[in-house]
Amino acid sequence: MIKPSVLMLAISSIFLSACNDSAAVTAAPETTKVKNLILMIGDGMGPQQVGLLEEYAQRAPHSIYNEKGNKTALSIFADAGVMGLSLNAPYGSNGSLVVDSACSATQLATGVAAGSEMIGLDNQGNIVETILERAKAQGKATGLVSDTRITHATPAAFAAHQPHRSFEAKIAEQLIESGNVDVMLSGGARVFLPADIKTNQASRDQMAALGMPTSVYKKSKRKDQRNLLLEAKNQHGYNLAFNKDQLAAAQGTTLLGLFANSGMADGIAYTACKQDNSCTQPSLRDMTMKALDILSKDEDGFFLMIEGGQIDWAGHVNDAGWMLHELIKFDEAVAAVYDWVKDRDDTLVIITADHETGSFGFSYSRNNLPASQHLTGNGMQGKEYKPNFNFGELSQLDKLYAQSGTFYAMMDQVSADWNFNNTTGQQWADAINTYSAFKVTPEQAAQIGLREENEYHVDGHKYLSAKEFPKVNDFKEFYVYGDEIHANLIGRALGASQNIVWGTGTHTATPVPVYAFGPKNIIQQFSTMQHHVELSQKMADALL
Amino acid sequence: MIKPSVLMLAISSIFLSACNDSAAVTAAPETTKVKNLILMIGDGMGPQQVGLLEEYAQRAPHSIYNEKGNKTALSIFADAGVMGLSLNAPYGSNGSLVVDSACSATQLATGVAAGSEMIGLDNQGNIVETILERAKAQGKATGLVSDTRITHATPAAFAAHQPHRSFEAKIAEQLIESGNVDVMLSGGARVFLPADIKTNQASRDQMAALGMPTSVYKKSKRKDQRNLLLEAKNQHGYNLAFNKDQLAAAQGTTLLGLFANSGMADGIAYTACKQDNSCTQPSLRDMTMKALDILSKDEDGFFLMIEGGQIDWAGHVNDAGWMLHELIKFDEAVAAVYDWVKDRDDTLVIITADHETGSFGFSYSRNNLPASQHLTGNGMQGKEYKPNFNFGELSQLDKLYAQSGTFYAMMDQVSADWNFNNTTGQQWADAINTYSAFKVTPEQAAQIGLREENEYHVDGHKYLSAKEFPKVNDFKEFYVYGDEIHANLIGRALGASQNIVWGTGTHTATPVPVYAFGPKNIIQQFSTMQHHVELSQKMADALL
Repeated sequence: MIKPSVLMLAISSIFLSACNDSAAVTAAPETTKVKNLILMIGDGMGPQQVGLLEEYAQRAPHSIYNEKGNKTALSIFADAGVMGLSLNAPYGSNGSLVVDSACSATQLATGVAAGSEMIGLDNQGNIVETILERAKAQGKATGLVSDTRITHATPAAFAAHQPHRSFEAKIAEQLIESGNVDVMLSGGARVFLPADIKTNQASRDQMAALGMPTSVYKKSKRKDQRNLLLEAKNQHGYNLAFNKDQLAAAQGTTLLGLFANSGMADGIAYTACKQDNSCTQPSLRDMTMKALDILSKDEDGFFLMIEGGQIDWAGHVNDAGWMLHELIKFDEAVAAVYDWVKDRDDTLVIITADHETGSFGFSYSRNNLPASQHLTGNGMQGKEYKPNFNFGELSQLDKLYAQSGTFYAMMDQVSADWNFNNTTGQQWADAINTYSAFKVTPEQAAQIGLREENEYHVDGHKYLSAKEFPKVNDFKEFYVYGDEIHANLIGRALGASQNIVWGTGTHTATPVPVYAFGPKNIIQQFSTMQHHVELSQKMADALL
Repeated sequence: MIKPSVLMLAISSIFLSACNDSAAVTAAPETTKVKNLILMIGDGMGPQQVGLLEEYAQRAPHSIYNEKGNKTALSIFADAGVMGLSLNAPYGSNGSLVVDSACSATQLATGVAAGSEMIGLDNQGNIVETILERAKAQGKATGLVSDTRITHATPAAFAAHQPHRSFEAKIAEQLIESGNVDVMLSGGARVFLPADIKTNQASRDQMAALGMPTSVYKKSKRKDQRNLLLEAKNQHGYNLAFNKDQLAAAQGTTLLGLFANSGMADGIAYTACKQDNSCTQPSLRDMTMKALDILSKDEDGFFLMIEGGQIDWAGHVNDAGWMLHELIKFDEAVAAVYDWVKDRDDTLVIITADHETGSFGFSYSRNNLPASQHLTGNGMQGKEYKPNFNFGELSQLDKLYAQSGTFYAMMDQVSADWNFNNTTGQQWADAINTYSAFKVTPEQAAQIGLREENEYHVDGHKYLSAKEFPKVNDFKEFYVYGDEIHANLIGRALGASQNIVWGTGTHTATPVPVYAFGPKNIIQQFSTMQHHVELSQKMADALL
């Protein structure tokens, strides 16, 4: 192997020996620092999920990427930069096998081993300065963008420090009080609003006067009367935005944009509103472009983290159609970053995931075997072409894309108030057939409504306090989120016709892809099998 | 981004402008060709499987890699070279979603789209020259090494052309008659032996006289009386070897080594015989080193394909302990290749997989929740550390390694003649507890023996002709191999205590890792998201 540095020395020698009077000329030093760092995290976007996006983009008969040469923005980055893989479990000899988003984002943000479900703390519970905070301390501008909630695990871990990811009300306080994050664009207004926002007309009028849509202030998850939005504006100098137009119009160097009460629009809803130009929330791409606009004005450079957070949500409920739309939504933001960065040499872009979700895969089956076929090739020896199994038709990629509502929408159709005690196969089949291009019969859907005693019941547990759980048969211990598991059972009812399998309702420890773009001698180090703790250290070394 | 070529031009300009009389001096041309290509294929070794090996090597408390700085040979290659990912489905707009080993190896060998289950043919059934055949035609030496059978899909696709992978008897004929493969080391003697080898004492004596162990000639899968081993020796000039010692002693430039009647020793058996120095078969590492010894004598260079083929077999039956031992066995061969190649600049090494098998993952669960813990960190705010779920203890990696027999061994214990019509939970629990460090009760094992009507029954089908199948509940269509599915049900019984999930008994379309080592300007192109068809083209361009 010839490394560039060696190459340069070799070339230098050639010229130096041929030209004795040029002793003063030396090779230019290699770039070891960048001005800006853009970190993009596809939450739950393992190699499996990236594979789904690539298969769709490259080979769905009616792929929306057909107009773009069937190239995803991710693959454009892969070609222009380098790729690697990264292990992501809670690090070290007292870590664990599988990571959650809080621990993973903390490890990415700090470069030290973190504990499960903690935000911005090491694995002993100590507060650790994050890469965002270090960048801010050096005078750089900083930003966090997510299509979930700004207080959700991934963005939170870059600028808050809490013993548990569920303390979102406190995370919101830290985000606005620290002064460390110049630009925050996401959902999650519910932990910024006073506890009585639903009933207190004065507060509601105040929010409406700021231009906040009613859907954004519909309820609060705070237990106190603080209005963190007003505090952000009046005490901490943030400009505010609550819809797409306000985001576009926003001026200045700081911006808090909260565009939903909880999570932002899902990928399927976004695809739909984009098609008829009716989106009121900004897209992940819109938020990304605005953040780049603002942050790039800082002469000292910037740190920006952008999360595609609902890839994970779709994975948790084993909803492949939704997951595809989330991947496309994320890839739109990736394309915006590429357009901004492609001709620059002062910026490092890292695109990765925090973990894989769902143990997703296309797979081959004994269902619906293909008919035999006559092939004309000279190697057939008179035999028909007849594979033993169903390896999956490409048209299924179009049918996945055609899904018009998430599994949550299907659940809502079966029971608007989520009472699933006495549902029927007919109800589930109707709901699935309303939204999915893969159709099921009531008989095929009958298992979706089955429930059983939760043998892993724990009093007072956020998820496991339920006495009854939807009935999963195989690997049931890996389905942990109570009634949402009916959605996982929808995934099972659709699996055979989709050629799709899932192994879990939680995460796996699969190494995740790393895409690195920037100065060549900086990005080479990412083309290896690393761990997220090391990935974080490499990023910090390049930026700080 | 600064590419080396641009860098060189820039440096050239500096020197040229500083030194006008050096016009004759130009930069050395970049390397675009290599003399040798070593392709290593971990069959079924997706990112998930590599992750298992890395977690074991780096963090199992008693990892056998503790003495080696916890570095796998794979990760050494990753650090010294580059990594990428590769899509692997049947290629093109008339392809499918999921690949089998025959199609995948054909695509890797030919660089064109292939059909499912075909060997060395394109997707219209035409014979396509493989990279091995092209290398041979250019005067290079060639070799195939596998721990399965030399006629199994992966090695076969590099040197045979058949409309279906199951035609192993014909594949054996093509392998020895073509004269294209100088070195073949694997199992699979059964399709080289005459049909009556079991009863014909004269033939048996002949084989014994050649030094073949009785276990290697115990039966034939041929329907004729040809003895391809004698043909190979007498008509085609092959030296022969049938055990470890004969392999070590073999001389000359051609070698056919068949060390087992069907597949070679599994990874667990290999670990055991290695520990007490009782192995009679060569290891994958032994075969790799011998192949390198022989092939590297050719001044024109060589092409060598080495397959770790039983990673896939362990994945199909969802046996994580076995899979770990297979990965270790493969990594030993990878280490041998690294030792051979590390100081060379004339060889390209590509390590990849043909596809992922099993949709494997470590995952977090509602089983066996961890106790709360007091942490001393300054960010705990008086809270205890108590994650909501079981994220998996690292000691489980040691327990996986401690497994002393494959799931097949467990099935053999329950019924030596594989009659599973009336088994009990007690029998299954006894068998599991004989071999696994994860213990189960008869109640937990009761589901393993359940059977049901095969609703996907197909008359005359190699696998689906069975009227009855073991009973899988969820995603049952993806369990296709008849009685072997009882092993998959063992995987289900162990999953919760192992923190392990599986999505399928077949393959997934997950992009697989690519490790590339060699001249820097050649390997850079592999650090991207490619397809195996492109990967093959890149390899051929570098070698030929």
